[in-house]
Amino acid sequence: MQQLSVRHLLGIKDLTPADIALIFETADNFKEVLSRTIKKVPSLRDITIANVFFENSTRTRLSFELAEKRLSADVINFSASGSSVKKGETLLDTVNNILAMKVDMIVMRHASAGAPHFLSRHIKANIVNAGDGTHEHPTQALLDSFSIRERYGEVAGKKVAIIGDILHSRVALSNIFALKKLGAEVMVCGPITLLPRYISELGVKVELDVRKALAWCDVANVLRIQLERQQMKYFPSLREYTLYYGIDKKLLDSLNKEITIMHPGPINRGVELSSDAADSHHSIILNQVENGVAIRMAVLYLLASQVA
Amino acid sequence: MQQLSVRHLLGIKDLTPADIALIFETADNFKEVLSRTIKKVPSLRDITIANVFFENSTRTRLSFELAEKRLSADVINFSASGSSVKKGETLLDTVNNILAMKVDMIVMRHASAGAPHFLSRHIKANIVNAGDGTHEHPTQALLDSFSIRERYGEVAGKKVAIIGDILHSRVALSNIFALKKLGAEVMVCGPITLLPRYISELGVKVELDVRKALAWCDVANVLRIQLERQQMKYFPSLREYTLYYGIDKKLLDSLNKEITIMHPGPINRGVELSSDAADSHHSIILNQVENGVAIRMAVLYLLASQVA
Amino acid sequence: MQQLSVRHLLGIKDLTPADIALIFETADNFKEVLSRTIKKVPSLRDITIANVFFENSTRTRLSFELAEKRLSADVINFSASGSSVKKGETLLDTVNNILAMKVDMIVMRHASAGAPHFLSRHIKANIVNAGDGTHEHPTQALLDSFSIRERYGEVAGKKVAIIGDILHSRVALSNIFALKKLGAEVMVCGPITLLPRYISELGVKVELDVRKALAWCDVANVLRIQLERQQMKYFPSLREYTLYYGIDKKLLDSLNKEITIMHPGPINRGVELSSDAADSHHSIILNQVENGVAIRMAVLYLLASQVA
Repeated sequence: MQQLSVRHLLGIKDLTPADIALIFETADNFKEVLSRTIKKVPSLRDITIANVFFENSTRTRLSFELAEKRLSADVINFSASGSSVKKGETLLDTVNNILAMKVDMIVMRHASAGAPHFLSRHIKANIVNAGDGTHEHPTQALLDSFSIRERYGEVAGKKVAIIGDILHSRVALSNIFALKKLGAEVMVCGPITLLPRYISELGVKVELDVRKALAWCDVANVLRIQLERQQMKYFPSLREYTLYYGIDKKLLDSLNKEITIMHPGPINRGVELSSDAADSHHSIILNQVENGVAIRMAVLYLLASQVA
Repeated sequence: MQQLSVRHLLGIKDLTPADIALIFETADNFKEVLSRTIKKVPSLRDITIANVFFENSTRTRLSFELAEKRLSADVINFSASGSSVKKGETLLDTVNNILAMKVDMIVMRHASAGAPHFLSRHIKANIVNAGDGTHEHPTQALLDSFSIRERYGEVAGKKVAIIGDILHSRVALSNIFALKKLGAEVMVCGPITLLPRYISELGVKVELDVRKALAWCDVANVLRIQLERQQMKYFPSLREYTLYYGIDKKLLDSLNKEITIMHPGPINRGVELSSDAADSHHSIILNQVENGVAIRMAVLYLLASQVA
Repeated sequence: MQQLSVRHLLGIKDLTPADIALIFETADNFKEVLSRTIKKVPSLRDITIANVFFENSTRTRLSFELAEKRLSADVINFSASGSSVKKGETLLDTVNNILAMKVDMIVMRHASAGAPHFLSRHIKANIVNAGDGTHEHPTQALLDSFSIRERYGEVAGKKVAIIGDILHSRVALSNIFALKKLGAEVMVCGPITLLPRYISELGVKVELDVRKALAWCDVANVLRIQLERQQMKYFPSLREYTLYYGIDKKLLDSLNKEITIMHPGPINRGVELSSDAADSHHSIILNQVENGVAIRMAVLYLLASQVA
């Protein structure tokens, strides 16, 4: 059997194109099997997986939990609220305690960039990064590229614009790594205040005008804008952002071309995307959600079936 | 196989008497099977059910969760706290996201009346309303009527008084619909300030004096009074309510007749019901709880086994 | 088959030495079976267990949940936050409601000493006390003694010092009972303000100087100090406690002898234990966590398999 080149999924940065291809083929298989009346495969019957979420994320946790249950794994949920973490325990102690109970894999979300990387140097179990601060969110990027591949047959050669708050987004960084490894052309687009300073080092085009970005791309991956901006004295404000960067059906129609709209969710309808754009035939947003379960099944399965 | 006339259980209002009879017969079967050493039936082995609770309700959620597990369904719990709902996502987006992960049924509690009805017009999955604001709570009404039928052989012809805060109760409205469809005589009893204005349109007797209501009825379904009233300047206050409407063993004994006491729980002991009344031989309150699991199994089973 | 002399595990106080021996032998078996590739035994396939936690305790709940799932029991989690408990329901009503749904066993944590004992007089289901106030935490004491037995072959004759905040610890009291029943010599050590007044009645040595306690004992069970002390005007303060009672590797090395360090977790690194002591070869802290699952499996299995 083919194997991944890594023992953990910490970030897209560490994956080879062959790793990504293997994950996609495995996800294809799971999607195909589950499209029949079958709801479960026995692949991880003897594996216990702990979902350790130090930050709330119902959507990602639910997707992982369904992936785990459909692989017949035993699932334990651990959330930081009401846990020993509040009592001042260290991250490593928390995870070592969970592992001492004979847990085989850790799916982990943490507010600090690098937290899963730190853990991977100290524990034996496989770790899947479900988001570390504003750093990486690798399964999101994998499901995004998988969805582009599903739409167009391949990712290579496609023009993908990532639009919005690039600076605060773990989705943007992981997507840039994945798309470039798969041979896509990548552009980021957003107000200059929401672009990171190191953007020029990432080998992507930069565009401040959303109309030009949409005119250029095959796929627009529209990021979520933090609603908290409204209360603060940021530039741009939420209202300014919507005025200059909000995407609606009228704008999409004016392009006079086929374009695919993606969004990692949850959508702020009427802010970064209007409802008529989000629900239009351009949108593959719900396909992304569906593919998320298959991609996570593939990642968990491949990591668990590695020969130690 | 017989089928329900509805695709969702949104409220008792939409059910025919034949629907209710079918649910009761199915619940009879499940109760009978589970009274043996068997703890599970494989009926929903390939079904995934999401319990989507936008309002806390440990008791109802637990009853649904046990019903689902005893049907061998896969269960996913989603609660609003810590979810994308806080991030401003719409109800429809939240549910569409859950469904995109290949969830087959939604059990849903929401603070807004009509929320599950709205959803049912936009999604394909079966919806079970587990309480929508002060509107309906259909499985509670079904288990209440089922418990009356268990005690007396039938509901038709029985005199049932619903006593307490009718105005703020989803239990009252659903019970009125169910009892009338099954041929019971229904009375509501409570202080005039806790009766809805539209009460005369529901075809029920109205009684302000709890002694007269108890003297009239075979079954008293005593509703819970909100403890929050104590802090507020409502009329009646909690103290006044207990004085004029509280039911104790002495009052029940003074009736010199057989009477059945029901309560949807949780009881405020010493407010609407005294402990000696709640724990007396008149009470079938714990039977209601037990029947709740069987009724919910029946509803989930019947909705899931509909030919699309 | 051998049976326990009790129907509930309320506290170590009620157990005979034969009970403890039976629990240990059963835990040995489960550890042995689970050390192979097997992850689950079908022992409690038809049993439903509710974990009823009125106080947060992720660590203990997780250990019980894993034990239950490895016994193939059906598991229901009930936590007080967001439950009817907030609505003023009594403890007995809450538990009776859960039991009416055909739950077979209750694992319970409650802030009030004696809460599970009260329940055991009113309900039929088996109860396992997972901590009641500052009173008992019997499974913790069992896993602690089991870990000492694993290290030394037996508990009898060993010298065990329990060090720290004896006054506020349910772990200390249960450990004293267990160790004495098993024939160990027991010492408690801590500042005089953190020793209970009734300590002289428990038949243990008392020592105020942690160096003398360490010099005396084979095993030091170091308790957690509440971080909340820092904000308060207690004597000793957190800083004073660490200065006089904190244990580090240098102190352990200065003893020039073999010594075993235990801790119920979560550790405050740098307060009661330094990192170099907690992670040294003296420490069996992670063995305790692992043994916790086996001990809880044994307790649940033995209670469930009693002939009524």
